[in-house]
Amino acid sequence: MIKVGINGYGTIGKRVAEAVTLQDDMKIVGIVKTKPTYEMRGAIDANYPVFASTKNKIPFFESKGIEVSGVTEDLVNLADIIIDCTPGKLGVNNMEMYEKAGTKAIWQGGEKHEPIGTSFNSLTNYSESIGKDYVRVVSCNTTGLSRTLYPLLNEYGINNVQAVMVRRSGDPKDSDRGPINSIEPVLNVPSHHGPDVQTVISDLNIQTMAVKVPTTIMHVHCIIVELESEPDVSRVIELWDNTPRVDLIEGFLHNEGNKIRNLPGTAEIMEWARDSLYTRGDLNQIAVWKDGVHSFGNKLYYYQAIHQESDVVPENIDAIRAMCNIESDSFKSVEKTNKALGIN
Amino acid sequence: MIKVGINGYGTIGKRVAEAVTLQDDMKIVGIVKTKPTYEMRGAIDANYPVFASTKNKIPFFESKGIEVSGVTEDLVNLADIIIDCTPGKLGVNNMEMYEKAGTKAIWQGGEKHEPIGTSFNSLTNYSESIGKDYVRVVSCNTTGLSRTLYPLLNEYGINNVQAVMVRRSGDPKDSDRGPINSIEPVLNVPSHHGPDVQTVISDLNIQTMAVKVPTTIMHVHCIIVELESEPDVSRVIELWDNTPRVDLIEGFLHNEGNKIRNLPGTAEIMEWARDSLYTRGDLNQIAVWKDGVHSFGNKLYYYQAIHQESDVVPENIDAIRAMCNIESDSFKSVEKTNKALGIN
Amino acid sequence: MIKVGINGYGTIGKRVAEAVTLQDDMKIVGIVKTKPTYEMRGAIDANYPVFASTKNKIPFFESKGIEVSGVTEDLVNLADIIIDCTPGKLGVNNMEMYEKAGTKAIWQGGEKHEPIGTSFNSLTNYSESIGKDYVRVVSCNTTGLSRTLYPLLNEYGINNVQAVMVRRSGDPKDSDRGPINSIEPVLNVPSHHGPDVQTVISDLNIQTMAVKVPTTIMHVHCIIVELESEPDVSRVIELWDNTPRVDLIEGFLHNEGNKIRNLPGTAEIMEWARDSLYTRGDLNQIAVWKDGVHSFGNKLYYYQAIHQESDVVPENIDAIRAMCNIESDSFKSVEKTNKALGIN
Amino acid sequence: MIKVGINGYGTIGKRVAEAVTLQDDMKIVGIVKTKPTYEMRGAIDANYPVFASTKNKIPFFESKGIEVSGVTEDLVNLADIIIDCTPGKLGVNNMEMYEKAGTKAIWQGGEKHEPIGTSFNSLTNYSESIGKDYVRVVSCNTTGLSRTLYPLLNEYGINNVQAVMVRRSGDPKDSDRGPINSIEPVLNVPSHHGPDVQTVISDLNIQTMAVKVPTTIMHVHCIIVELESEPDVSRVIELWDNTPRVDLIEGFLHNEGNKIRNLPGTAEIMEWARDSLYTRGDLNQIAVWKDGVHSFGNKLYYYQAIHQESDVVPENIDAIRAMCNIESDSFKSVEKTNKALGIN
Repeated sequence: MIKVGINGYGTIGKRVAEAVTLQDDMKIVGIVKTKPTYEMRGAIDANYPVFASTKNKIPFFESKGIEVSGVTEDLVNLADIIIDCTPGKLGVNNMEMYEKAGTKAIWQGGEKHEPIGTSFNSLTNYSESIGKDYVRVVSCNTTGLSRTLYPLLNEYGINNVQAVMVRRSGDPKDSDRGPINSIEPVLNVPSHHGPDVQTVISDLNIQTMAVKVPTTIMHVHCIIVELESEPDVSRVIELWDNTPRVDLIEGFLHNEGNKIRNLPGTAEIMEWARDSLYTRGDLNQIAVWKDGVHSFGNKLYYYQAIHQESDVVPENIDAIRAMCNIESDSFKSVEKTNKALGIN
Repeated sequence: MIKVGINGYGTIGKRVAEAVTLQDDMKIVGIVKTKPTYEMRGAIDANYPVFASTKNKIPFFESKGIEVSGVTEDLVNLADIIIDCTPGKLGVNNMEMYEKAGTKAIWQGGEKHEPIGTSFNSLTNYSESIGKDYVRVVSCNTTGLSRTLYPLLNEYGINNVQAVMVRRSGDPKDSDRGPINSIEPVLNVPSHHGPDVQTVISDLNIQTMAVKVPTTIMHVHCIIVELESEPDVSRVIELWDNTPRVDLIEGFLHNEGNKIRNLPGTAEIMEWARDSLYTRGDLNQIAVWKDGVHSFGNKLYYYQAIHQESDVVPENIDAIRAMCNIESDSFKSVEKTNKALGIN
Repeated sequence: MIKVGINGYGTIGKRVAEAVTLQDDMKIVGIVKTKPTYEMRGAIDANYPVFASTKNKIPFFESKGIEVSGVTEDLVNLADIIIDCTPGKLGVNNMEMYEKAGTKAIWQGGEKHEPIGTSFNSLTNYSESIGKDYVRVVSCNTTGLSRTLYPLLNEYGINNVQAVMVRRSGDPKDSDRGPINSIEPVLNVPSHHGPDVQTVISDLNIQTMAVKVPTTIMHVHCIIVELESEPDVSRVIELWDNTPRVDLIEGFLHNEGNKIRNLPGTAEIMEWARDSLYTRGDLNQIAVWKDGVHSFGNKLYYYQAIHQESDVVPENIDAIRAMCNIESDSFKSVEKTNKALGIN
Repeated sequence: MIKVGINGYGTIGKRVAEAVTLQDDMKIVGIVKTKPTYEMRGAIDANYPVFASTKNKIPFFESKGIEVSGVTEDLVNLADIIIDCTPGKLGVNNMEMYEKAGTKAIWQGGEKHEPIGTSFNSLTNYSESIGKDYVRVVSCNTTGLSRTLYPLLNEYGINNVQAVMVRRSGDPKDSDRGPINSIEPVLNVPSHHGPDVQTVISDLNIQTMAVKVPTTIMHVHCIIVELESEPDVSRVIELWDNTPRVDLIEGFLHNEGNKIRNLPGTAEIMEWARDSLYTRGDLNQIAVWKDGVHSFGNKLYYYQAIHQESDVVPENIDAIRAMCNIESDSFKSVEKTNKALGIN
């Protein structure tokens, strides 16, 4: 049983904790939080040992009736591996602490690739992380791009990818984030997403643009791929149907000449995810609209929706297995994780 | 085992179906749907028999690989009681069909009180529905007002209530509803909510106003109650703490002179509901902000949040028990329902 | 010609500047800004002398091709009166600087009443500011409440007012403000609005509650007034029709039994304001829905919409006249201001 | 003086009316409206003769105190040219009526190209409309794409264009349109925008995708152009600087190592447009972010924002001139229109 500690019990941290608990080869030995806010609920219900980020925070936790098992360093010493889910670009500062304790660590996509050195996607480069001490699971958007581009790369070869990320502005709980009524482009081109995909699929020729829009529930990607040979749309759909953690959906149904709204947008997709009674109403899979896939010559056009809160959760589990040498075959880990999480 | 049919498998219908399945004294014998859209997912996963609304819709269902067990009338004949969750103000047209089949029926708060004759809230007037054939479970807002006003009425007596409902404009999945950037008042005063509370707490002196705002997740009520005697805020909080299906929450935490956002708004409340890993991320309880309760003389001011998709679900279960003469004691039914649903 | 300086050229500052320019008894001698962002456009088009907030900011202005006439202190020395529109709760720190220069000053409603000592509304207490050095024009919400309550107070007498402010979360340009999908109550009761009205209508018995909602364009007030005698709705409407800076609007039209959306919400009201070709699409007046006014016994219920960006602009002009002893009769000042601004 | 009639006095109709009024070679002889709602305000203020859409609507107008000069056919007979701004895809049904009266007509981009036969953009194909009876001014998005692509085509030659339109869901006043919290892709690829550009720039190789997002104020285009030769970004910016009805803006300013928000999104752009005190706060120009233009080899990437309510207004004016043979030189018409409208 791999002993897993969670440093930063927010959107990703709490989900990874719950996913770890569902596996039979790893367990949670504690979670770190900075403040005893409402987000403690899941940890308390699950009886995870709670560690305060620093010593001076302990009285605050105790004042809310929460028993504290120690501070961050204590958990780091206790765990075989830490999932670092502290806010973006700060997590890497913790590397020294992990190094000192001889504890492995996984960071999330908010960190940059370079200081960590290895980036991870279950499908595309699992083997690079085997036995590694420090690994970064790429962001939700990069994970989404990788999952649907990789099968195309293998089947057809890719000349280049042009993608526009239409990004939600904050998670549902991020009530302090705007805008309420504005569209904001990411003026740096390429946006960080393109280069980031290259950390898990090297040599892919990809440029990305991005805009931020006033919604909280999912990102949507508009993707144009120039393949090395002419694709057949039905074959492409079949490829994705056989790809783990990709779900094919229909935007519209047709009956007696009528076009009927089915899953036309991210609102309905999230409802459909809730209808599966999967934990939290999450969608670990990438949703690709079957009726949005089109080809013209070598060019393939498609749309996909990304549940930013949860798609990287199974990748974190797989990364633990690779790093801790529990499983060397990526497909076996993916299958095991999926089964435990109820995916497909 | 009471045989329950669901006519209209949407926001409320699917939730009541799932809640029925969790009880030991009732079961789902089928659900009616008009179109085989994505919302079938839950019914298929749960193996509910599916009935098409009308005969001509059957081929559409079959074209999507869904086995159809019959049409609405067939389910009505099969069931002991129908939960009618067809769109507001149309459901009452089905009464004749239910009457002909000798099947009991429950409608939702979108219908008017008069044609049905009995309105229901578990706490305030359970006994009025015992043995009845036709009952209407009041709307999400009326249910919310009733749950927190009734204990005040019993403890202090109420001179009058002034309440403003700040309403979400559509459910999360209602992507065709606006507005995107507008506030729209309900210009008829009193809004229907006040008179509607009187169908379950007769003689209550209550006037309501309402506005519609661009959010999808919860309603918020701003309530001013003039009591017959001076209230003590801590006693009021204690009363609600002992009231079933009311949850007390804190908007802000305080530590070392700092004010920390905890559950300041509906976004965080919905996240907290998801954190409980309760089905669908629902919140059947009314959330009352402890730090928003204030009194000045006989007047009590408070805010509460209503999860419009789910708060009436346990009331539907209780109403089934009352109407089918399974349980004559409201408290026993409430307790049984709550336990089965994991409330509190 | 009164020499007016604007300290803080943002939402309110730029509007007051434009309004001053339209008067024949005052003029702009300069505006202070901290950064040469896009909001300079109006100042440059109008040829207002530009002052940098501090000396070290001057090169930044010059790098954008903007000629700088000095710093804040220079403008303060130059002006007869400063309109302080610096961000809320900071403006009062400037009082010492104004005192030293012997320059009068007006602050906005983001400041508290006490340190300034005199609060201002054109209709209710103009005379209190005559000849004063330091005055605070009350906030947009307080201005709105005062304009419609004062005529009721005079005609009927008021026992008490209960009001709920449904507040927009940020101005249209405040793209960094959320929430995107949440309702957030103001948990302190009374919200600051009630006591604030008492700074311009002393002895008014008023309690207010407030919620913040995800819209940018207007606040909506839901108001319940218990009068000393029974009101007649048509008389009330007539009173407001004769009140300056109050506009009566119709939410719905009726034709051949059909109900037709006219100005049902704040989105349409803002469009109607733009249709008047009034500067910036502003609405200096308070919009009261005629079809939303109702009475039951002594109680009067009504809804009004507040254009938070502009309703206090004419009050600032009137306050200048009162403080600088140009006009002692409030009605004459209001009439003069309205005429110059094209109101009514 | 060309006599212009407006059939459909909504978002576009009222703006074209106001723009016509500002020209010295044309005038408004009347406007048609179906209902006497608030949108009449501008017509009444401007003293435009009002025509009811049909005879039976006349009493409704008169009941609101509006004098009616006749019905649609009367205005068609009176006018030299009709600007048909009736709701999309219905307008073309009016062609027979215009034909019968021998009146020229302009439709908007909601209509299809084929039944009308000639599509119009001032910059790209003005001469095709000279003397024509029926012309269609292309949509706001097509107009925006044409304005910035055409100079690139002339200077460099274009191999192909890939563009993603991030579309606002409704105009500010369209309060009945959603979604509130969803992103909805246009699953047909290419979206209609690409082929539509080809109606005014034939032979352009362009494919477009589109998504609808919850905002009301502007569209944003993400554009990737493969040129025939390698572009220089500063030369590209210079080209656009010299292109009529294109405005170059800066998303961020830089000072002493700090990055300062200037016009990072559509909210700020609309504020900046309002600051110009241009009528209604409109922006007839296409706003291109200077700091968002990048090139890699022959590929050019850029972002632009489109004010959907107003960018086609000057094109309508130019189209009138071309069709009525007042001006054969497109540049002269553009210059004349721009001057009258205060553009640049």
